[in-house]
Amino acid sequence: MVDEQLIQPRLLKGFQDFLPQKMIGRQKVIEKIRNVYERYGFLPLDTPSQEYTLTLLGQYSDEGNKQIYRLQSPEGEDIAMRFDLTVPLARVVASYPNLQKPFRRYQVGNVWRADKPDPGRFREFLQFDIDAVGCPEVYTDAEILLAIFDTFKELDIENFRIFVNNRKLLNGLIAYAKIPSDKALKVFRVLDKLDKIGLANVEKELADGRVDDSGDCIPGVNLDKEQIRRILAFIEIPKTNRKETLQAVTDVLKDTPEAAEALAELEIIAGALASVEIPDDKIAIDPSLARGLDYYTGPVFEAKILDAPRFGTVFAGGRYDNLLHRFTGETIPSTGASIGVDRLLSALEFLNKISPELSTAQVLITRMDKSRGNDYIKLARMLRLAGIKTELYSGSEKSLKKQLQYANNLKFHVAVIAGENEFNDSAVAIKNLREGLDERKDASREQWMEKAKSGQITVPVAEMVETIKKILTI
Amino acid sequence: MVDEQLIQPRLLKGFQDFLPQKMIGRQKVIEKIRNVYERYGFLPLDTPSQEYTLTLLGQYSDEGNKQIYRLQSPEGEDIAMRFDLTVPLARVVASYPNLQKPFRRYQVGNVWRADKPDPGRFREFLQFDIDAVGCPEVYTDAEILLAIFDTFKELDIENFRIFVNNRKLLNGLIAYAKIPSDKALKVFRVLDKLDKIGLANVEKELADGRVDDSGDCIPGVNLDKEQIRRILAFIEIPKTNRKETLQAVTDVLKDTPEAAEALAELEIIAGALASVEIPDDKIAIDPSLARGLDYYTGPVFEAKILDAPRFGTVFAGGRYDNLLHRFTGETIPSTGASIGVDRLLSALEFLNKISPELSTAQVLITRMDKSRGNDYIKLARMLRLAGIKTELYSGSEKSLKKQLQYANNLKFHVAVIAGENEFNDSAVAIKNLREGLDERKDASREQWMEKAKSGQITVPVAEMVETIKKILTI
Repeated sequence: MVDEQLIQPRLLKGFQDFLPQKMIGRQKVIEKIRNVYERYGFLPLDTPSQEYTLTLLGQYSDEGNKQIYRLQSPEGEDIAMRFDLTVPLARVVASYPNLQKPFRRYQVGNVWRADKPDPGRFREFLQFDIDAVGCPEVYTDAEILLAIFDTFKELDIENFRIFVNNRKLLNGLIAYAKIPSDKALKVFRVLDKLDKIGLANVEKELADGRVDDSGDCIPGVNLDKEQIRRILAFIEIPKTNRKETLQAVTDVLKDTPEAAEALAELEIIAGALASVEIPDDKIAIDPSLARGLDYYTGPVFEAKILDAPRFGTVFAGGRYDNLLHRFTGETIPSTGASIGVDRLLSALEFLNKISPELSTAQVLITRMDKSRGNDYIKLARMLRLAGIKTELYSGSEKSLKKQLQYANNLKFHVAVIAGENEFNDSAVAIKNLREGLDERKDASREQWMEKAKSGQITVPVAEMVETIKKILTI
Repeated sequence: MVDEQLIQPRLLKGFQDFLPQKMIGRQKVIEKIRNVYERYGFLPLDTPSQEYTLTLLGQYSDEGNKQIYRLQSPEGEDIAMRFDLTVPLARVVASYPNLQKPFRRYQVGNVWRADKPDPGRFREFLQFDIDAVGCPEVYTDAEILLAIFDTFKELDIENFRIFVNNRKLLNGLIAYAKIPSDKALKVFRVLDKLDKIGLANVEKELADGRVDDSGDCIPGVNLDKEQIRRILAFIEIPKTNRKETLQAVTDVLKDTPEAAEALAELEIIAGALASVEIPDDKIAIDPSLARGLDYYTGPVFEAKILDAPRFGTVFAGGRYDNLLHRFTGETIPSTGASIGVDRLLSALEFLNKISPELSTAQVLITRMDKSRGNDYIKLARMLRLAGIKTELYSGSEKSLKKQLQYANNLKFHVAVIAGENEFNDSAVAIKNLREGLDERKDASREQWMEKAKSGQITVPVAEMVETIKKILTI
């Protein structure tokens, strides 16, 4: 029977197995995010994991984006694994013109990037996106910020900060600093690195460049002194609280008409956040926040967990108009945010906010007496019909001790034990596997508690469900 | 701005978009299945969508299984999209030798097959599997049958039937009918088609073959008359109830030692099902059920929805020992079942068991007065903090009428309406969009009901949450 050519079981590089003890926590996190987003009226959407390469990359699809996984359809067409959830959203909005607008959808799904894998950076990773398509007012951006705020709360993360800015404010800065428009994107990309490289290096990159730690030469944007002075003055505006930051920004840009719209929008967002009493240290205005992607056209935001800084940005998003550009050429006012679930999970694990759970089941029915198979099946059915998650021991260990060991290994709460004697008495023994039986001071259950001190109690089968419910306090 | 070369938004052939009205129901179905399986103590597992081609296909991976999607890793290795969830389970069990046994896992995930797509047959489709690895006794098979039974109940499907057989019984039949072992698999494959082609055609295929409707020649297994007679006698055993069927099968095979184990196992399963009073018309013994896959080694089962026959088998599974064969050469006693979720969903839609739901949100806050943006944000926050799923209207329609139209289109339950007058009175109007306000005969709320007859009521802002909770009856 044994095959001579055995295959080594190998996981692909950059991919992950989620064994139950990781998966249970992961599912809970996804569920919590989903609950928050549904509370904001976002609706679920799912789309294929594969799309035409042309759909994903646009007309430049031939110029090889090396980061995507390409394959062929059975018909020989060029297809690829999706690398985000935004392009599929765009394809959906363009495909179904009768879709009710505003279209506010959430989508949770894997995306694939043929990146160099790092610890915490995967080739297959789960994204959780919300987007509101057809929403012209920045009140919707404020709502997205609130949804992110609520998500952190729901995940029991206290020490987070959400940063908000407006891409048009940076356009104002470009005008104010008299920077030619062909250099604007380069400047934004440098500002985007502020957190990573620090102010001094930003200054060098805005000037004639620098040599980084690994000896690589990073070319500068070649701005002049006055241009750099203006930019630095701007990004050094203190982020004390939203009102003061906004006032300071307004002071700098008050004579720059290109900034007027951005300032008005930030005022609205700040006003909305104040009206629902969101603390200034939780959502801050960061006038230098740029966000790398070119397609943002209004508010932009990102969020970090302050005591897990090495996991970087866990939420990011902003407003964009060009969702449909590639397909219909229309503009449609939209805003959204994306969560890197795997990164968030890594941060949560780092913060001990996810305790590994070893079992979803609460009760293990042990099987001492193999001749009473049907009696055990009946006990299991009673518990399951009562909604109690129950495993009937199904392994090959015959000894009760080893079966209880299994229950302990998987952190079951309760074990049910019955053999010849118990079955003859129509009884079962119930063992609380956690710190003795429940210690609640319920007078009406005094006698029961008395017996239960030992952590094990024998009750008639007819009382099994109720007794276990008491132990599980459900 | 408009790009001259617009791209046509196209969905890949054989793939599906799940717009919200379909996705909401889909999520509910998945959730229900998950609840049942967790009640049986199965734990969640997730694995990558891609694996080494060698892992998926074994050492025969070069001989091109044309149904799989192949691609290359960034390192140039041969990889492929998984085509089921069983091979990844095997890779996991082989990869983590310390995994606690029995390992009872559920996994819900997409699989990919480069098949010819048909209505109801997709290239990307969702499977929901349970498997119990390291479980030697057929009581576990009985539990899987019960889990399937409970899943049908949970999905509100009444008219289903689960068929169970034992692969070893068919081996007994082969011995009884004196069929040489090299013809056994061919015979099983013919039996597998009984439902589709009928008894007369089975007889022909067991003999010298036949020409099917499309003119294709189907070769026969070339059994002789007596061999065929014995097989037909066997498969004609009436499936009246489990006990009688099993008795009739035993009568035929009582002198065939090769069938003894199978009969004993079926007895155990029948006994277990009887002990928890599962009706005979819900789980039946079908002595001719073969299941195509070669790797089953004990009980096999499949389930159909009787009033949705064209969707075929929605559950299938059985016992197998060779999970690890490819990787370690070991045998490990295992059993499991798989649901084709997309097929099941199609059947549920056909049976009108899934009403399309257009919104997950319950309340739409309309926005008549754009100057009161923060007031609307505050109303939304009050409702959301109370756990009420609330959408704040964020589209471009300015008229109340059109916003209410949007609420009706998406089947919201309640609309909140407030303008200058209401805000000045610290009040809101609440409109029940479904069949007038709730008609429950609650005496203490008589006065409230009086006002509410019209379907719209104005209350102080402080009473908004409670009033809406009453309407939603939460």
